[in-house]
Amino acid sequence: MATHTLTVDLGDRSYPIVIGTGLLDSGFDLFCYLEGSGCLVISNETVSPLYLHKLKKCLTNDEVRCHSIPDGEAQKSLATVEAILDELVETRAGRDTTIIALGGGVVGDIAGFAAACYMRGVAFIQVPTTLLAQVDSSVGGKTGVNHPGGKNLIGAFHQPRIVLIDTDTLSTLPDRELRAGLAEVIKYGAIADIDFFAWLETNMQPLLDRDAEALTYAIRRSCEIKALVVAEDERESGKRALLNFGHTFGHAIENSMGYGEWLHGEAVAAGMVMAAQMSGIDEDELGRLTALVDAAGLPIRPPLAGSARLREAMQMDKKVQANQLRFVLLRSLGDAFVTTEYSAVALEEVLSMADA
Amino acid sequence: MATHTLTVDLGDRSYPIVIGTGLLDSGFDLFCYLEGSGCLVISNETVSPLYLHKLKKCLTNDEVRCHSIPDGEAQKSLATVEAILDELVETRAGRDTTIIALGGGVVGDIAGFAAACYMRGVAFIQVPTTLLAQVDSSVGGKTGVNHPGGKNLIGAFHQPRIVLIDTDTLSTLPDRELRAGLAEVIKYGAIADIDFFAWLETNMQPLLDRDAEALTYAIRRSCEIKALVVAEDERESGKRALLNFGHTFGHAIENSMGYGEWLHGEAVAAGMVMAAQMSGIDEDELGRLTALVDAAGLPIRPPLAGSARLREAMQMDKKVQANQLRFVLLRSLGDAFVTTEYSAVALEEVLSMADA
Repeated sequence: MATHTLTVDLGDRSYPIVIGTGLLDSGFDLFCYLEGSGCLVISNETVSPLYLHKLKKCLTNDEVRCHSIPDGEAQKSLATVEAILDELVETRAGRDTTIIALGGGVVGDIAGFAAACYMRGVAFIQVPTTLLAQVDSSVGGKTGVNHPGGKNLIGAFHQPRIVLIDTDTLSTLPDRELRAGLAEVIKYGAIADIDFFAWLETNMQPLLDRDAEALTYAIRRSCEIKALVVAEDERESGKRALLNFGHTFGHAIENSMGYGEWLHGEAVAAGMVMAAQMSGIDEDELGRLTALVDAAGLPIRPPLAGSARLREAMQMDKKVQANQLRFVLLRSLGDAFVTTEYSAVALEEVLSMADA
Repeated sequence: MATHTLTVDLGDRSYPIVIGTGLLDSGFDLFCYLEGSGCLVISNETVSPLYLHKLKKCLTNDEVRCHSIPDGEAQKSLATVEAILDELVETRAGRDTTIIALGGGVVGDIAGFAAACYMRGVAFIQVPTTLLAQVDSSVGGKTGVNHPGGKNLIGAFHQPRIVLIDTDTLSTLPDRELRAGLAEVIKYGAIADIDFFAWLETNMQPLLDRDAEALTYAIRRSCEIKALVVAEDERESGKRALLNFGHTFGHAIENSMGYGEWLHGEAVAAGMVMAAQMSGIDEDELGRLTALVDAAGLPIRPPLAGSARLREAMQMDKKVQANQLRFVLLRSLGDAFVTTEYSAVALEEVLSMADA
């Protein structure tokens, strides 16, 4: 199958997203994207046994060091980044070193932030191995870690040199994580492309069956949309906020449940249905979104933890967001907008979905 | 006396450097440079009692919080930045918060890095109160902290919104620190402006006597040169390295003595004489540089700690710099260049200045 290359257009910091099957097996030349000859791979204990030896074939370095961290969101802390910086200093990595992230969103966020901070910024490469990372977190340069007081509060914008997406890596991804990734794929259709949304309605089963052609197309279209938005608004001063469709409610769900209980994609899935309902789009379209989320095996309503807990979590978010909650709402499927003005009644109605 | 405003030209991230006397006393309107209404001042225990109340007059916020750290280079650690991030999270500072650095280079570097990392970057303002910070570290966006393995190994480029230089703050600066700042002032003349160098030869005594007009001119010309260099090469891929004249030897001196023994400016002063000698410029010019450094009350040779220690410190630096030592040398006074090709014999001769 063909390899597709997209470009994230950011002037002299533009970079390619290369999408295809068998890229790691065929020894894709990643070496030419390194700044110098040295690199450090950041991965985790689940992914590195599966793919590190393949990644090494894409690099012609004599020795490729790998810093492997335990799996899970709990690792996304400043302490983990510090340990990576310590290793870089200990091995005397120079300004010309390159950090390579091999793994999902957590690995990419941590590795990218370490790359952003070491010697005021060294080169960075993303090799995402989960669907969520491939369609969302690996593209666009957001890096960072969590603070006990909130998610992603510490970080930097640091764009990679290349995003290398080998769809074969999805073969080892647990079903639940595949579905969580599909939430973000559905998001792109819902906010920006009704045709893609319709394609997803037709092709959800092949996607769940991990049909390589369907997955490649879904990833490619998702990355195309994300790349366009990021090129227009790298630092989220405007349009990039559209990518947060479903995320205000999603974060509230994640926060109120404790992270890890619901996967990010699951929380976003329910959050998208809530945001669509709050938008007051017509019933047909709301039904289509709900049905597609359901077909992906994702939750179509928040956990029955009570609206009070969600409201509280949103108040916390609100304070962090400088006292204004911002929602991404839909005019119709495929047409989203950002607003701080919303109906309090509609919000309460949606939050009540969490009451038994 | 007039207020001078320069611009650091970085496209949509351009910012002014405002230089003058009495700026804090007269309530310069700093509020209009804040992103939102909230801000956090970072200062130290020496500076905040002297100038925080004046800075507050420049802000019309109801309440201005100040995070004060102990004085000294030892504070320039990731732990200090973490404590600032903790305070930002605890006080629920939003994306629209502004961090204001009130102090010398250490405070500016720490505050700037915290601003770069909080929520992937918030607004930042520099109010430098030492000569070194006014002519060097506050301009150009270099921020960061030290790692036990080396200086400034962790950091980010994060440009301020404005650099506000009130030369009155120099009235409380210890003599030794004033002289250390003059080392960087001399550097600008030596690398880029023979006329400014000649002006310094004539005006060293008024500068040491803290004549306001002389200081203002010296700061202005230094900032002009730095602003031009930074505008051309923000991330030090080329020309900006010229600003490191005297710094390869200077860092070796600081490293081999233990930080704090010699001030940065003192080490750079001796380093400039060493670099000029290694350059093989004519004896007259070498004599002029040596005499000017001496007139500023700064060391004209390295400490007599033995060339072996300096050589060792430079080897460490070399490893960090990806195996190549880079020197800034002079063709003549006012005309510097960067090179990795140098005479090993000339280097040895210069290092032997450290032998008794």
